[in-house]
Parts: sequence; structure tokens; C-alpha cells
Amino acid sequence: MVSPGSQLPPTPAVPKRYELLTLGDELLLGLTPNGHLTFIGAQLGRRGVLLERNVTITDEAEAIARQFRESWAKADVVITTGGLGPTCDDRTREVLAGVLGQKLVFDPAIEQAMLARFAAFGRKMTPNNLKQAYKFERGEVLPNAHGTAPGLWVEQDGKVLCMLPGPPNELQPMFIEQVLPRLAKLGLVLDREAYVQLRTAGVGESALETRLQPVFDRYGDALSVAFCAHQAQVDCRVSSPGGKLSTAQLEAIAAECAQLLGEDFMGYGHDSLAKICADLLRAQDKKLAVVETATGGLLANAFTEACGACKFFAGGVVCCSNDAKMQLLDVPECLLLQHGAVSAEAAVAMATGAAETLGADYALAVTGFAGASAAGGPGGNPVGTIFIALHAPQGVWSKKLNYPGPRATVKVRAVNAALDWLRRELVRAQAGAVTPARRSGLMQ
Amino acid sequence: MVSPGSQLPPTPAVPKRYELLTLGDELLLGLTPNGHLTFIGAQLGRRGVLLERNVTITDEAEAIARQFRESWAKADVVITTGGLGPTCDDRTREVLAGVLGQKLVFDPAIEQAMLARFAAFGRKMTPNNLKQAYKFERGEVLPNAHGTAPGLWVEQDGKVLCMLPGPPNELQPMFIEQVLPRLAKLGLVLDREAYVQLRTAGVGESALETRLQPVFDRYGDALSVAFCAHQAQVDCRVSSPGGKLSTAQLEAIAAECAQLLGEDFMGYGHDSLAKICADLLRAQDKKLAVVETATGGLLANAFTEACGACKFFAGGVVCCSNDAKMQLLDVPECLLLQHGAVSAEAAVAMATGAAETLGADYALAVTGFAGASAAGGPGGNPVGTIFIALHAPQGVWSKKLNYPGPRATVKVRAVNAALDWLRRELVRAQAGAVTPARRSGLMQ
Repeated sequence: MVSPGSQLPPTPAVPKRYELLTLGDELLLGLTPNGHLTFIGAQLGRRGVLLERNVTITDEAEAIARQFRESWAKADVVITTGGLGPTCDDRTREVLAGVLGQKLVFDPAIEQAMLARFAAFGRKMTPNNLKQAYKFERGEVLPNAHGTAPGLWVEQDGKVLCMLPGPPNELQPMFIEQVLPRLAKLGLVLDREAYVQLRTAGVGESALETRLQPVFDRYGDALSVAFCAHQAQVDCRVSSPGGKLSTAQLEAIAAECAQLLGEDFMGYGHDSLAKICADLLRAQDKKLAVVETATGGLLANAFTEACGACKFFAGGVVCCSNDAKMQLLDVPECLLLQHGAVSAEAAVAMATGAAETLGADYALAVTGFAGASAAGGPGGNPVGTIFIALHAPQGVWSKKLNYPGPRATVKVRAVNAALDWLRRELVRAQAGAVTPARRSGLMQ
Repeated sequence: MVSPGSQLPPTPAVPKRYELLTLGDELLLGLTPNGHLTFIGAQLGRRGVLLERNVTITDEAEAIARQFRESWAKADVVITTGGLGPTCDDRTREVLAGVLGQKLVFDPAIEQAMLARFAAFGRKMTPNNLKQAYKFERGEVLPNAHGTAPGLWVEQDGKVLCMLPGPPNELQPMFIEQVLPRLAKLGLVLDREAYVQLRTAGVGESALETRLQPVFDRYGDALSVAFCAHQAQVDCRVSSPGGKLSTAQLEAIAAECAQLLGEDFMGYGHDSLAKICADLLRAQDKKLAVVETATGGLLANAFTEACGACKFFAGGVVCCSNDAKMQLLDVPECLLLQHGAVSAEAAVAMATGAAETLGADYALAVTGFAGASAAGGPGGNPVGTIFIALHAPQGVWSKKLNYPGPRATVKVRAVNAALDWLRRELVRAQAGAVTPARRSGLMQ
């Protein structure tokens, strides 16, 4: 039943060892989060590579040399970030050239690119920038479209060294546009996504596995399945070790799973809940308004991250006082006094008020006690109690949720629960169904 | 002039080597950011220790053993995070005990604490949880008030091993309440903050150094100064290597710097701009409203992070369409049509509208084109153009700002610029000054 996939290159028999060296005192002092690990780890994972190790060390030359020597001896591919800039604590280039026994040579093409960049910004290039115009004598240059320091690429001893600049807006496009294609050409990563990913929402990891297992069982060990749980969202990744199943077969399996999951299936790939909602709103030419207390602006921000948000985002209101709810959204004072601001009644009134005031087709309201420092409500609801409401053309409903944990976690989970409810309603509207939103899997 | 400080223990002559091992495939796959590095690095930095290295490795037993052997040989203190839970991929306890040649022994006190915790949540404890009730035969237990897996503490070979659970809400209080005091008792960290920190806003790193250098020069090498630049904010840390200056002397030096800096001085310590604004608003019994387009909810969220935000936060509006501005805030349509939504005039009208509609004493407005995907405006303003406006009891003003860079950076810088403007105005109001806000250092 399982035929060998012809479109897929076989996964390497002996997996290659990747190490990531992130350089900089600012990482070790906790001044900057290590976003390079998150980004590069995820990108490699999508191409079938599990990063073996990430080491963060200081800017000190001896520490860099010691660590690089050790990593270079063990790994097949070493990626470094940071320390390529113009200042005196940027030592990566010089130190690594020393360890590899290579000379650094001046590259006039890099100097030209830097001069053009400074000219475009109307600034004068200071002499210390010239340090960035040196490359390895037996190495290549990865041009930097978003900054002055280019990346550097060295193949030596049957291994690869890839040196990337520290700023994320320079590193990230360089990694996707230049590094991944070079690694794929050398067979060190797959030349396509290593798995087909289904994103799901509103269903736990073990329940998801139970529902999909009958599909997976039909393929035995030709199929590999991994689950990744996020807040209120679980990804399921199907792949084929050794390439026994073709991409088309994996996609067919994923489609069967999506069918089985119904509304719990969010989409293929890596789109966020907010992006999926935004696309559905745009496709249906509908507008959304939001009103939030406990999530403090994060629900609105999830939408304004999307491109061209003005087309579908009618506006948002962040309030915690009853005054603001009454003034901006015409929520009746008597309702707030009787039921409290953290109640199903208040949530419904807020959602309806937001939709009507802002002229939106859909509206989400989130009200609650988010974190340890919040006081409990008049209705005796404990901290972590959240009410969300959805106003849609078909009606308006509310749900009560309860999330334990710290404030930041509660906020993210409440935002995701609200987004997922909206997504389900939009999916139903697109399908032309008139099923009331209360049938949602999240409903209590 | 410089007398040896008597209150300070001398900094150790030979600094101790700290290594942090963060365990988990989810970190290497980029599914979870490595927040433990950020938190522990910052906490150690505040106690005078620069973490020497952070290594992130997989959950695989052999990888953990190999890395721990290497780190234990080199370091004086090894801190691990993760892998202490109940499931089969939680192997840290067993593997490290093996490397150190210790037995794991069952501790009934841990079992009792777990049973109590499960009972409090009305859940039944499954048998796999008992794994977490084992400690090192020659080691101690760090009780976990926020989860089931306790931390473990081992002193052996003149070194310290400290094993912490992975969830941040369990790790962070354990580190502050239990780990730092133990390390201080052993003389491995200072028993107080290692430096006095001045936070500044609205002034660049080099300009700051130039203004403060005359003060620093009087103390020669008894004083050490470090600058840490954030977005629109620079911290200055003064300390005394070898304890030549007392804490009181360092505080006097910091106070002199603060005096010199005037309004550019934000405060001592680690408070954020939003926290400082919140404290000033509370102290003056004033209310704030915000309205934002480009920052999408992040300005409002900065305030709702603060405890008891309802006391001073009147509410926020997030809008991108002209309709929302007109409907919620009474911004005149003709003004928006004539000047565009990204203009000084619109910003001022939005701030005033927010203050009046929400009954606030102060209001901040942020409008602009935040990022690469935003379209330029009718007034020909390029991407990265931001107008902010401040409404205060004394009047209402606007500023034009321009930030290059990616959307996320522009958002953070715009939020900080708005917060800093409010802070300066509140500081002046507190001092009883009637100086107009336009004298702000940020004013263009």
C-alpha cells in the first residue's frame, strides 16, 4: 500500500551535526533575548534538521576561540551570530580566521556596497567600518541588503562555517534567501519543508492523537508523526523517514486528517490564528471590532500585526473602568452594576456595543481577571476567570473560561480562545452554514 | 578622597565560572524562546556575576551526560533548567546523578507536598509523578510553591549544581527566593545589587557619557561605569571594583549624576517607563487615556501590565480607519480629510478626543506608518513616520518622529517615545512647574 516516494530525496543516513554559536555579553546578561536560537532552530527544523546544540558565550576573544575550536571539531555545520560589526568588541571574524588558519583579505566589492549604503542614508562612512570589508581568503561573502556587515561562508575540512550579523532584520532574510539554499545544495538540509503541518485549535494533544491514530496506523513506520503544543493550539507534523512516502502522499494524509478534524483544523503550514481570521474577514469582506479589559490591547495588536489591517479591522477599545465601557460603547450602567464587569452579561453588552459603535459585522469582547495581582470580582469570580463574547451577524454569545497561571499566560490563552471562536464562526459563515456559534468545541 | 568601603564584601579575586544548561528539544526547534537565559543572566548580572556560557541541548540522555560532564569539569557553578517533570523525556535528574556518582533517594516530604498540591486542585496524582519525589542522596531539595517538580541542590567537588524546573512561573520565584540566597551565603554572588543603576531616556549613549564623565573622572579606577542601551533608553551602572567605594558613596555619585541629567533621568533601579508613568499618575491622582494606530494596542498594554491599572488608566482606543476615529473620539472628518490621518493635526485631535471622551487628565495619541508593509500617507510621509501627541491639563502638543527599521522595532520605539514624553510632563507637574511640554528633549 505504501509506495516509495519518488519526489523526495532520501533523508541523509547519518544526520549532520549542526551547532549554533550565539555571541554577545548582552545575551548572557539578559539584556537581549536570544531570538536567533528561536529563528534558526525553527527554520532548520522545517528543513528536517534538529539543531544539536546552541552555545552562547561572551565577546571575549579567548572564549570565542576556545568554543569555536570545540564546536568545529564536533559539528558538520557551525553557524555563528554577532560580532561582525565595526567596533572593537566585534572580534568573531578575526578569531575564527585564526582558528581555521586562514588569512582575512580586503574585498573592494564589500567596501563599495557599504559606501553605497551610507550614501543612500546621507551619512559619511567612518574608517572603523572598513573592518567589515574583510573576508576569508578561502571563503565567500553573503551580501547584506539591510545593513553594513555582510555574512561570511567558509567550506573547509569537509565542514561548513556560516557567520551571520547580529541584528535580526539583517540575519533573517540572509538566512532564508542565501544560507538555506546553499545548505540545500550541499545536501545538508532538505530542499523543501521536511513535513506537512496541520495546525489545530481547541483540542488537546492526547485527544488529537486519539482522533487521528486510525489514519496514521494505516501507514506503519513509513509515517512519522510529531505533535507540538502551544497555548490553546497543537500542531501535528507528518513526515516520512527515509522518504518512503511522497510529498503528494503526505499531503493526502494531511487532507484526510483535516477532514476528520472538521472545525478543529485551523490550516496547513505556519499561519497564526490572527492571520487566518484576517484572511477569512478579507475574503468575506467583513469588519471586526474588539473590546478588551484583561488582555490589555494584545487582542487588537494581534490584528494590527497583519498587513493592511485597516481593510477589515474597524477598531478596538481597551478599558478597565466601567466609565470607559459606558462612554465609548454604550454599555448600560445598570447592567455593569448588577452583574459586574466580569460577567457573561457584560461581555455580551461590550461585544454588541463595539460592533454597533464601530460599525463592524463581528466583534470580540474579553473581560476578566488576568493575573495574580488582579483583585477578584464582585460576583466572586476567582483570578484567572475570563468571559469572552462574540457578536456575529447571526447573534451574540458568551463563554466563561478559567485559566490558572501567571498573568502573561492567561492573556495569551484568552486572546487565542477569542481568536479561535471567531475563526470557527467565520469558517461556518464561509461554508454558508447557519449553525449557531454556541456549538463551538470551546463552549462550556 | 576615596575611602575603602566598609559595608561591601570584596569582589572575589578569582571570579567564579557559572554555566547555564538549558535542556529541551522545544528550545532547539524554536518552539519556545529561551527565556531562562534572559532571566537568570539578568539576575546573576545584578549580583555581580557575568554568566560565562549558556548551552542548550536536546532531551537525549547521552547528550545531557556528555554536556554536563564537560560543564562540570570547567565551571564552579552549573545551573540546569528543565527535564525534571514526570514524563519519559524528563531525564535530567537520573542522568546527572549518574555523572556525579550519586544515588537518587525517595523523599516522602516531596511526595506529601505533591499530594497536597493535587488535592488542592481537586485532581488525582498519577503514579508517574512519583519520579519527582527523588532527590540526590547527598543533596538538598528546593521546594516548589508553584508546581510539582521541586528544584535540587548539590554541593560536591567544591562546586555547586542547581537543578531548576522548566516552567518560568516555577523557576523564577525559586531562583530569587531560594537560589540567590544560597549562592550569596557561599560567597558565589554578592549579597546585594552589584551596582547602582540610573535609567535615562531620550539621550544617546555617547552624549550621556560626555555629560557624566566629569563626575566619573573624580573617582579614577575606584569607579567602574557601564552603559546598556535599549530602545530610546540607556542605563548607566556604577560600581566599585574591589569594593573601594561604599554603597553609600555609589548612591551619592548616582544622585549627583541624576541631578546633572535633570529630566533625562528616569529613575534608579529597573522600573520600566510605563511603571514610572503609572506611579506618577497614581501619586498625582490623575487619569490617562491613549489612542493609537501604528502601535496597535501595545501602548495600552504597557499600562495594563501594571497592577491596579484601573485606578489611573481611563481607557484606550485602537483604530486605523478614519471612521473609528470620528465615531469614538469625535475627531472631525474635515480635519482627517484635509491633513490625513498621519499628521500633527490628526494626532492632536485624537489626543484631545480621547481625553474628553474618556474623562482623562492626560492623553497620548500615536499615529503613523509603522512598518515595511504599510503604505505611505497622503501627505507623502514615508514609512516609519510617526506623530505622537500629548494632551495635558496645560495644553496639547504634537511631535513628528521618524524611525527606520522593521515594524516591531518602530512600534517599540514609538511606544517608548510617547511614554517618555508623558513621564517628563508628569515630573514637571509634580515639581509644580508650568513649563510647557514642548521643551521636552524629544521635541523636534
